[in-house]
This record gives sequence, structure tokens and C-alpha cells, in this order.
Amino acid sequence: MNVNGRKYRTIWLAEDGWGVEIIDQTRFPHAFETIRLETLEEAAHAIRIMQVRGAPLIGATAAYGMCLALRADATDLGLMNACSTLLDTRPTAVNLRWALDVVRKTLLPVPPEQRVARAYSLAERICDEDVAINMSIGTHGAKLISDIAASKRPGDPVNILTHCNAGWLATVDWGTATAPIYMSHDAGTPVHVWVDETRPRNQGAFLTAWELGQHGVPHTVVADNAGGHLMQHGEVDMVIVGTDRTTAEGDVCNKIGTYLKALAAKDCGVPFYVALPSPTIDFTLSNGLREIPIEERIGEEVSHITGLTASGKIETIEIVAPGSEVANPAFDVTPARLVTGLITERGVLTADRQSIAAAFPERVAG
Amino acid sequence: MNVNGRKYRTIWLAEDGWGVEIIDQTRFPHAFETIRLETLEEAAHAIRIMQVRGAPLIGATAAYGMCLALRADATDLGLMNACSTLLDTRPTAVNLRWALDVVRKTLLPVPPEQRVARAYSLAERICDEDVAINMSIGTHGAKLISDIAASKRPGDPVNILTHCNAGWLATVDWGTATAPIYMSHDAGTPVHVWVDETRPRNQGAFLTAWELGQHGVPHTVVADNAGGHLMQHGEVDMVIVGTDRTTAEGDVCNKIGTYLKALAAKDCGVPFYVALPSPTIDFTLSNGLREIPIEERIGEEVSHITGLTASGKIETIEIVAPGSEVANPAFDVTPARLVTGLITERGVLTADRQSIAAAFPERVAG
Repeated sequence: MNVNGRKYRTIWLAEDGWGVEIIDQTRFPHAFETIRLETLEEAAHAIRIMQVRGAPLIGATAAYGMCLALRADATDLGLMNACSTLLDTRPTAVNLRWALDVVRKTLLPVPPEQRVARAYSLAERICDEDVAINMSIGTHGAKLISDIAASKRPGDPVNILTHCNAGWLATVDWGTATAPIYMSHDAGTPVHVWVDETRPRNQGAFLTAWELGQHGVPHTVVADNAGGHLMQHGEVDMVIVGTDRTTAEGDVCNKIGTYLKALAAKDCGVPFYVALPSPTIDFTLSNGLREIPIEERIGEEVSHITGLTASGKIETIEIVAPGSEVANPAFDVTPARLVTGLITERGVLTADRQSIAAAFPERVAG
Repeated sequence: MNVNGRKYRTIWLAEDGWGVEIIDQTRFPHAFETIRLETLEEAAHAIRIMQVRGAPLIGATAAYGMCLALRADATDLGLMNACSTLLDTRPTAVNLRWALDVVRKTLLPVPPEQRVARAYSLAERICDEDVAINMSIGTHGAKLISDIAASKRPGDPVNILTHCNAGWLATVDWGTATAPIYMSHDAGTPVHVWVDETRPRNQGAFLTAWELGQHGVPHTVVADNAGGHLMQHGEVDMVIVGTDRTTAEGDVCNKIGTYLKALAAKDCGVPFYVALPSPTIDFTLSNGLREIPIEERIGEEVSHITGLTASGKIETIEIVAPGSEVANPAFDVTPARLVTGLITERGVLTADRQSIAAAFPERVAG
């Protein structure tokens, strides 16, 4: 998507054909800087300190990290060590493990002298596949948006509420929840996005607002508390959020607070969509509320916040009464009954076992 | 309630019998300081810059401000000017107007030389009446809490979620939503409070957490996004919130985000109570969603936040992507259908026209 009027992906091959460039996401929203990665260690560091974040982008960075590692050591041992180094950066990231498995299994049978070239083409394919999936999600979701636009007065924007950042910054390009929005905007459908700030890590106010602004998509940041009120007053035409995990029955585990927006959408008759690449569907899970453990993160994410002072300095401040306990559950589960539809790369599905299984029969069999 | 182990009200007469002392609420949660008011101007200033806040406390401060004004000028003109000065501080505050009306109407027929003494006894009565109302709310609400405690294993705390600050700091003492909590705690019923941080002004994390902590009530601050998840997992036994305005049919207008918690409570089978002194019931209103205009406050409340740096300095930082639009609706309306009961000074009422009218027949007649 666009930054300062120029098209970007979140990760790309440098002009010299081997260095890897990324956007430094730790500097958002107050600075935009790109970084060149030249070694395995630099790639691992970028993942570890979250210069790159979001499951698809972490996977892509790991794949390119393997390319850089193999340039230095293309032996079997070099390959295995690189996998292990990268896997250790974010041990629970599912896409990271998946990308590394693909690279390792593909390259082990290949003669060492051919491994570097194969690794680069593999990394490129992993990136392009992510982009293709998101564009597919975008196409299916944009149809939902244009249907709503057709029911409104010509020129009136379709008001879409989103929570957290399921944007292009979390993927290689387009994003998941944002893909339909960018496609509609680029196609000339007037859209306006309500961006939940998404406490406690403020990914909405920091990331989603930034990327929508850079691409020129009209948007308004609101406190997470505001969405219900906006829906009560007809200010929201649809909700589109992402998901970290989706069960075989269509329960959705996404950023904490998603469930509250789904309840409000149901109460106000606002369609609630979840955009997801099918790899986030976990066919071993049925009831998300019972089966998905929710990560409890450190309290400092709630009690402290970082931003820009009037004098232009990045500063962290405490924003909870001293001595008070803090809890910080990171995700919640939205039951399938509150989900209007799942926007996948194979179309918009009803959030139930039958529809999901019918769309991905090969996954059910597996 | 207690601060540093000592009992306080939010406003009180100084030992010399004429100065008025208040807690400087602009310094919370990082400093506790009291201020002595000696003139009309100082009282007006305290209300204007929100050293005192909360409808009942603003009314009480205005009443004491009249005492201070009359010490300087007890003529009819002095009385009228003082009323006008105080009313201008927060023109939309209903309790402010009400307290000033009471003082003006009572004192105008009184000879000027008796006005100061009468004003002080009137101000004292206004404060004591607020305390009595809140204690009544506390008694009725504490019964609900002890009923829940009786259904739990002995010693297990009753988990109560609250939003914003309807605490003693907003009143003269006890608070409204917090009165049942303080009474239960003081009576030895184990309680634990989930405190919504309450973006964007963070009254939960700044004020409610501070006052509960000072009084020794166990509590945990959470992002506003977390409440639904907590309720889904049985971590909340009841919700108690305050209200700014309540309609004759029991719709409740309270801090933005209250509606989302009410929806989650309904969905999870958690009782949702609203504590209110009956003056907040507006019998001229029926449908809150249609009839109550919602104040849109300045965007800086969302885009900027103030807290304490590691070096102990109070600092304000920007926490939204630069250039993004911001919206800041301050309240929302929770429909009566989501309210389990209204805890008033005359008992716990069903949130409907019949129950409310039966409890306050004199208000309906008026």
C-alpha cells in the first residue's frame, strides 16, 4: 500500500538482489524508517524486537532470514541452525514455524550450492502467496462493501468499524480486514473507517490509523468504548475485524474487546464480518470459549503507555493509580452466533461447521 | 472514605469554622493534596478547573462558595452576583444549578445580616443529604452483594465490575456505584472490584482505582476491552455503574462504553445494576436513545494522555497517528432492557416506568 505516495510492501528484496528491506514497525506511528537486513542475526533480531509483526509478515521475514543465513553457510548444519535460531525468536508464532518447515523440507534434498537461489525463490513465493490470499479476501469483502454502498445515497461513504490492526502492516501487503477496505477505496467506492484505538497496545491508533492515513483512506480514531454508541446511532454500516485463530465451528479468537463489538453489532443489526486467511482456521478446535487458552500479558502494557511529547520526544508514562493491580488478557473469543460471515480467500462463508468444511474440504480430511 | 488511613469527605469546613477545604482532584492519581478556599473566586476556580468534579460535589462546592461570597457581600446584589459567577463555571451541570437555586431562594427572604450563618447551615445540609442518599444506596446495594456472597464458597470474594468513577470522589462521601462496595467491604464481606480504565479520560484507572486502593478494597484495573472476556469466564458476579441521567422508563445515560458492558452482562447472565440518587432521574424523558443528546468532547482527550514519567514528571503525550481524525462521544445510553435493577435511595427498582413511578410518586406528579 502507499506510504508518502509511494507503493510499499512490508518486506522486499533490495535492488542488489540479495539484501532484504523491511519497515521498522517499532517506530510507528511517529516515524517511518526502513531497515536493510544482511544476516541471519539481523533477521532474527527484527522478528524478536517486533520490527516486523503480524503472523504472515513474521513468516515471510523468517523465509528471507533463511536466504541470508544460507548465503553464509549453505550446509545441512547451517540450514538446521538457522531454522532453530529463527524459531526461537517467537516460539509461539504459528506462521513462523510453518514458513521454516516449508523452507527446511524443500531445501534439505537440494544440493548446498543450489540452496541460496532456491531459498530466495521460495521466500518470494511465500510473500506472493500471502499477497494473493489477501487480494482474494479483498475482492470478496469489497463485494460486501459495494452492496452496502448501493443501498446508500450515492456518494455517502460506507462506514466500517475495525478493531486492532489486521492491516497490511501485519501482512506482506493489503492486510486481511483492511484488504476489502483498500480495494473498495482504490475502486472509487467511498469508505470511512472507524478505528478502535485498541487498548492496551493501541494498535488501532498507532498502526491502522497510520496505514489508512498514508493510503488516503478517510478514517476516525475512537476510544474502544465508543463503538456501541456509534452503532446505536446508525454510524456504522458494517464491522470487519481480523482473527488470530478460528475454530472449525466459526468461533473467532481475536484481540481483546472484539467480543464487545460483536455484541453491539448484533444488538444494533450491524453486519459483523471476520476477514481471515484460511491457515488461521484450526480444524482441531470446536468451541473457542472452552478450548482456546487466552494469553495473559504483562500488566505494564495497561499501566504504562508510550507516545510523543510536545517537544518531540518519545516518552513512556504511567497511567494507573500507583499500587493498583492490573490484569491484561490479550484476546477474547467471539462465538460464531455473533458472526455474520467469514471473509476467506475462497469467499464469504457462514460461520458454522458445514460452510467452513465445504469451503476447505482438504483441511477437514487432513 | 479513607485516605492514608484517615477518614475524609471530598469537601469540609476548616477548623476555624469558615474556610472550606477540598481535595485537589486535578492531581490524581499521583498526588494527594487538599486546598483551602476562602473566597467566591477560589470556589469558582475550583469548580472551573475541575479540582472538584462529579455532580453532587460540584453542587456542594457551589453552596459553600455562596457562604464565602456572602461573607464579603451579603446584600441582594452580592447574592445574585455570586450565584451568577458560580453558575458560569460549568453551565450544563444540573446539580450546580439546583444547589444555587436552593441557596438563592432560601436566602433572599432572609435579612442580610443572617445570611452567612444560614448559608453555612444550608451548605452543611446539602452535604449531609448527599451523604445520606449515598448511604441509603449503599445499604440497598450491599444487600445484593451479600446475597451473591451467600451463594459463593465462604471467603470467596464477590467480583464486581465498574466503569468510570461513580465513587466517593464524585460525591461528598461514599459515592453512588461504590457505596455498596465500601459498605460491604467495611462489613467484612469479601469483595474484589474490576476497574475499567475508562478511556479516554481514564477516570477508572486514575480515580476509582486510587480511592479503592486508599480504602483498602481489593481491585484490579483492566482495559475497557477486557470486561466481556472476564464475564464469559465467570470472573464477574455483578456489574455496578453510576449514571448521569436516567429516563422515566429506566434508560441510563452513563460514561461511554457502559452500553457495551451491559450487553456483555446480558449475554453472560451477569446482573447489571445502576446506582443512582433519584435526582438523576429525569421524568420528562422516556426513550434515552432518541431523546438524550450525547456530548461530543474535544479530540485531544483521545489523542493525548497525561501520566507520570519514570523520572517522576507529569507529562502529556500524543498516542494517535499524526494527522488522523478523532471522535470523542462522552456518554452512551444503555436501554432499560439491559438493566437488572436501579439501586436508589428508596431501594432496588426494576428499570421500568411503573417501578420508578411507584418509588417516586411525588416526582411523577411534579
